[in-house]
Amino acid sequence: MSDDGGRLDRLTAMLRRRGVILPAFEIHGGVAGLYDFGPIGGKLRRNVKNIWLQHWAKHGDIVEIDSPTLTPEPVLIASGHVGEFNDYMSECKSCNSVFRSDHLLSDHHPNPDVLPPEELNSLLIKMGVTCPGCNQNDWLDARPMNLMFETKIGAMRGGRTAYMRPETAQGMFMLFPALYRHFRNRLPFGAVQTGKGYRNEISPRQGMIRLREFNMAELEYFIDPEVVPSHDFSKWNSMPFNLIPDPDTSSPVSMSIRDASEKGIIRHPTVAWFMGWTWDFLVAVGIDPNRIRFRQHEGTEMAHYASDCWDAEIEGSYGWIECVGIAHRGCYDLGAHENSTGNSSLKAWRPFQEPKSVDKTILAGNGAVIGPAFREKANAVNAALAELSNTNQEYPFQLTLDDGSEVTIEENMIEMKRVVATEHGEWFLPHVVEPAFGIDRIIWHILDHCYIETEKSGESYTLMQLPEFIAPVNVAILPLMEKDGLVEVADLLHRQICSISDVSSYYDGSGSIGRRYARADEVGVPWAITIDHQTLEDSTVTIRRRDDGLQMRIEMDLLQSKLATGSISELF
Amino acid sequence: MSDDGGRLDRLTAMLRRRGVILPAFEIHGGVAGLYDFGPIGGKLRRNVKNIWLQHWAKHGDIVEIDSPTLTPEPVLIASGHVGEFNDYMSECKSCNSVFRSDHLLSDHHPNPDVLPPEELNSLLIKMGVTCPGCNQNDWLDARPMNLMFETKIGAMRGGRTAYMRPETAQGMFMLFPALYRHFRNRLPFGAVQTGKGYRNEISPRQGMIRLREFNMAELEYFIDPEVVPSHDFSKWNSMPFNLIPDPDTSSPVSMSIRDASEKGIIRHPTVAWFMGWTWDFLVAVGIDPNRIRFRQHEGTEMAHYASDCWDAEIEGSYGWIECVGIAHRGCYDLGAHENSTGNSSLKAWRPFQEPKSVDKTILAGNGAVIGPAFREKANAVNAALAELSNTNQEYPFQLTLDDGSEVTIEENMIEMKRVVATEHGEWFLPHVVEPAFGIDRIIWHILDHCYIETEKSGESYTLMQLPEFIAPVNVAILPLMEKDGLVEVADLLHRQICSISDVSSYYDGSGSIGRRYARADEVGVPWAITIDHQTLEDSTVTIRRRDDGLQMRIEMDLLQSKLATGSISELF
Repeated sequence: MSDDGGRLDRLTAMLRRRGVILPAFEIHGGVAGLYDFGPIGGKLRRNVKNIWLQHWAKHGDIVEIDSPTLTPEPVLIASGHVGEFNDYMSECKSCNSVFRSDHLLSDHHPNPDVLPPEELNSLLIKMGVTCPGCNQNDWLDARPMNLMFETKIGAMRGGRTAYMRPETAQGMFMLFPALYRHFRNRLPFGAVQTGKGYRNEISPRQGMIRLREFNMAELEYFIDPEVVPSHDFSKWNSMPFNLIPDPDTSSPVSMSIRDASEKGIIRHPTVAWFMGWTWDFLVAVGIDPNRIRFRQHEGTEMAHYASDCWDAEIEGSYGWIECVGIAHRGCYDLGAHENSTGNSSLKAWRPFQEPKSVDKTILAGNGAVIGPAFREKANAVNAALAELSNTNQEYPFQLTLDDGSEVTIEENMIEMKRVVATEHGEWFLPHVVEPAFGIDRIIWHILDHCYIETEKSGESYTLMQLPEFIAPVNVAILPLMEKDGLVEVADLLHRQICSISDVSSYYDGSGSIGRRYARADEVGVPWAITIDHQTLEDSTVTIRRRDDGLQMRIEMDLLQSKLATGSISELF
Repeated sequence: MSDDGGRLDRLTAMLRRRGVILPAFEIHGGVAGLYDFGPIGGKLRRNVKNIWLQHWAKHGDIVEIDSPTLTPEPVLIASGHVGEFNDYMSECKSCNSVFRSDHLLSDHHPNPDVLPPEELNSLLIKMGVTCPGCNQNDWLDARPMNLMFETKIGAMRGGRTAYMRPETAQGMFMLFPALYRHFRNRLPFGAVQTGKGYRNEISPRQGMIRLREFNMAELEYFIDPEVVPSHDFSKWNSMPFNLIPDPDTSSPVSMSIRDASEKGIIRHPTVAWFMGWTWDFLVAVGIDPNRIRFRQHEGTEMAHYASDCWDAEIEGSYGWIECVGIAHRGCYDLGAHENSTGNSSLKAWRPFQEPKSVDKTILAGNGAVIGPAFREKANAVNAALAELSNTNQEYPFQLTLDDGSEVTIEENMIEMKRVVATEHGEWFLPHVVEPAFGIDRIIWHILDHCYIETEKSGESYTLMQLPEFIAPVNVAILPLMEKDGLVEVADLLHRQICSISDVSSYYDGSGSIGRRYARADEVGVPWAITIDHQTLEDSTVTIRRRDDGLQMRIEMDLLQSKLATGSISELF
């Protein structure tokens, strides 16, 4: 942790005291790695999520979905999580305490979480790492521990193993057939999901950085690998990004993402394009643009199927922290689910420029059986059968028709036929580019970057300089005193402002006005409104700007209409 | 299930085919009771949740929070869920199959889920209920099965039992101290949370009605039981509600909620008031007002601590279904957590009209220890000690100071003192009124009520008459043909509309215009926009209204500005 003179502790204490972010279940003793968003933080979280969703919705080819967090085991076997979503644990032979192997090595290696177990074991010996419990250096070999929370769906003997999802991405892969229908069979398109993800950390640390339950926001963007994308990079052309490429290929550079893409440092244009959109989002919600960098995964660090992966890292009180990962995942995910289920609905259709003649074997419907069995659907069944690429089906199997409905095909309905067919296109597995955002880490860094410690009249004073459009409270309503009818006017104005869609206000009636300004500034309320005796006469109030204390008088009606259109700052 | 001529099946098939709501994990065989919101449903779910949040935020004394779904066991022991959140299961002696006892009795009792186990057992015998597996009537005594999904937090020997939350309410109770600080120690106030809840149903049935993972939205409203609330019922005065009171007290009636409250049929004014707000919400999002009723829990059905509970039931394809519960829970929840933790921060302060003199024992700080130990905080520590009502503390204990920070108090810091004190008020446990909404069930009934089957040119035709402000897609963009430059204009308009906050558009370029109108009508798109050759000349488009097919030409700029302000309907 950086030597910040206690700033991190003061920030954390303020966030807890004011109900922004605080340890969960505290009255029952708390649980490491579980946090609440409190009366101020709840709205901050919603604002950041909504802005994230709007950031992608405006593309026009990206839709929102929502899938369950409870996930049956076969899905996570197919995805690789049951086998591979592990941390390595080292057990002390002397006192039997268990620790994460990479944590034991954090002072001895820059990136110990990417090391294979043999290297973890040998480094523990070589570096003489001692047990934090008993100070011995005598370790058992590192063992993998799966990081998913396990449970059972259903009762007793009928129970099936399930896990709380480690990521939201699988929901989008599961829905690929519905997405493909929705977009009328045309790539590219994407789906986003925001929601909870889970990771059974052994020893959560660093506040909001390592959580056991976290807010994720992921986009899966499906593309045809044979189509060269043409992205418009012009808005970022004059904007150098801090890039830390894989050291095997280049030294750290500062250059535009278009140049990095053209030079092959960023290996796929769509990855570069999403890096640009990621940068836009982070800066819009209040991250300091000078404390963002993009780091490319090294070969050893990257999943074997991925062809490129960049992390957006943000610098804050805990150093440089990965907050977004942008990965080109190839066809790994859809292919893995296709292989494990035999389901053929995870492919997309690519028309040929010119039709081709091919000699092939197809499953043809046996008319004498298909007709009576499916009646008016018989033609649709024949068409779907003819398009099956896999002619080695196990019977009976489920066949998905063009309209999305399913029928059961028995062996006697089928004849194998050798035909010379004219093919107009082919089925293929789309590739996926995935930007995955850790919303809690981003919120933490927004708060960290916007938190300003300063002085006022010789006393320490703090400000939270949140961008206005993510501020959880937009205005503070402060009656000069709680008598003479000021409370009634203030309360009515407060409720009227709370009725404006997406605008929120809080009422604070106690203490000196200076003290109340300070309370509002501390949690980033952009505008403080004072109701005084003049308000009773002419319906004007004093509005004060958070960041410089500048004040002016305006009519309450104007205040409300400016709040409704998000344009108060135009008054100043 | 009602005899609806297959309407329910057709609706369900449409929702699945169009990606509104569909069974989750289907390519892996699916899991009963788990559903996805697809490319159309995802936005519908978000719209309904956002409107629900705004419905409460506008009160001005209700804030949003978010707490973890993973919940450590002690919290759910205190809340009563570990002991009592059960279904009764009956096992067949003959074939060992296990069923929910109340499901076995559903044809023999109107409300079998409220029966105690002895009655379940005797009814199974008396009614001769046979095993669906082997047709024998030979049952073991009904056993309770807990309905929570269980898991472990942490690894190996350090693992602690936890459950996926069965409701979101506990998060608001845990945060009571932060809420009380946020509202500057003044009741009444409330907190809302939307999020996932979990229930390990033995045999989920009825589509979206019984889910294993569901979307909840709950409000906990904290009140002082000694303050008589004065709610304004005037907006509902001329509006009779369908009420089904506890049969012990009254027959079904239709009357205003003010009258029902004054006559004591609704036993607390705040419950009546929330019934009004609940009605407003349901009607606003598209529920048919004639298919809403409020049913009061009978004595046997109501939790022992609750003093009144009303369910808002909605009539649809599955009969009358409970979709909202509005319960006066007394001080049960805060008291239960106080009892189990000894934590004293769950109380609120009630000032006396006149100060009282009382003779009492207090914990006084031993100045010689407190001063050096806490320095500038010593006064705050003494003040907090003097306010502790429990003088039988176990040492050391954590003391919460006025500013929300905590200090550790050792036994040597304390002296017991008998004092005559002037008391200005007292600490008490607030009462809670809780409206709890089942978002999935409400969304289901919106779709059910808005789904219209009709005819057009002699063919069956379906419309989804969603209110415009919850429609997941606001406009459909339809180029008359995909050539002559119409695609480019349509695509640009589509993307511009998607850039408007909270407005969404979809592009549909294939098939006849009539067929494309039908596809848009089927999922409730309120406005269909056709781009034709005239558009290229004068930038006008044809806009068609979903519910009556009425069309007019307007300029694209006007279309966009009307969409941004939600006021397109003013054009017609």
